[in-house]
Amino acid sequence: MEDKSIGRLVSILYRQSQVYINHALKDLNISSSEYIFLMALYTNEGCSQEKLSSLLHIDKAATARAIKSLEEKGLVLRVNDENDKRAYKVFVTENGQSCRGIIYATLKGWTNLLTDGMDEVTINIVFDALQSMTEKLQNTDYTESSADSGGNAEENR
Amino acid sequence: MEDKSIGRLVSILYRQSQVYINHALKDLNISSSEYIFLMALYTNEGCSQEKLSSLLHIDKAATARAIKSLEEKGLVLRVNDENDKRAYKVFVTENGQSCRGIIYATLKGWTNLLTDGMDEVTINIVFDALQSMTEKLQNTDYTESSADSGGNAEENR
Repeated sequence: MEDKSIGRLVSILYRQSQVYINHALKDLNISSSEYIFLMALYTNEGCSQEKLSSLLHIDKAATARAIKSLEEKGLVLRVNDENDKRAYKVFVTENGQSCRGIIYATLKGWTNLLTDGMDEVTINIVFDALQSMTEKLQNTDYTESSADSGGNAEENR
Repeated sequence: MEDKSIGRLVSILYRQSQVYINHALKDLNISSSEYIFLMALYTNEGCSQEKLSSLLHIDKAATARAIKSLEEKGLVLRVNDENDKRAYKVFVTENGQSCRGIIYATLKGWTNLLTDGMDEVTINIVFDALQSMTEKLQNTDYTESSADSGGNAEENR
């Protein structure tokens, strides 16, 4: 039905990445829906829960679930915001910091698996095309909410 | 830190797609975490909740949440499995079927947006490369659970 649907392939690859990451981070007891928040916090220490939600384009309920779970696992710590008692600032604990190397290595392992056996020229064409798509989309106002998203934490990986 | 990380770009593009889809399906009151189950059910009518979870590589809790929400919206119907009283078979209601055209059009719109302004040669290289990645990964046993996943419903789009 959808010929040459790059969107469909991106969606399949993303889901496959979640299975890979779940497996790779199993021993750390970190799920694919949680690691992304640790990644964002490594470069945005003390970020509010609301800001995390908007940075990652993940809804507030799912953000709250993930942060609560990470806190229960002792990987992050929520601290009441002095300026807004209803808001939380989120910090990575020492245990959370100790996962950093493995998380980065896992993501590198995933990309290596994706491109394994592909020639450099093709890798570069695919990388440049996907990068130009993400940049174009960041500047496309196709939703009402895109104006207040303020960038993408994954850019910092 | 991660040069030429195709994995990172896939992840960003996927998240951008979720924002796009949420916006496009807002009037139908279908979220980006729900439409994927409707898509799978359009081609797997009467599928069990457990099978849906494994087809889409989405964990059981998230699957249960999405199906419950779709049922509350009158878009799917859960029926007790005659052979296993604890299991549910899921069917798309007439209302759920009526969303099909808009969902497919939305996904087509997303792919068109991704490839807008790209030349045919590049589109073909990117498509072929991503397709070969998904095929390679489907045949890679990098997790214990990959053996019982039994394919990917998104293939049927």
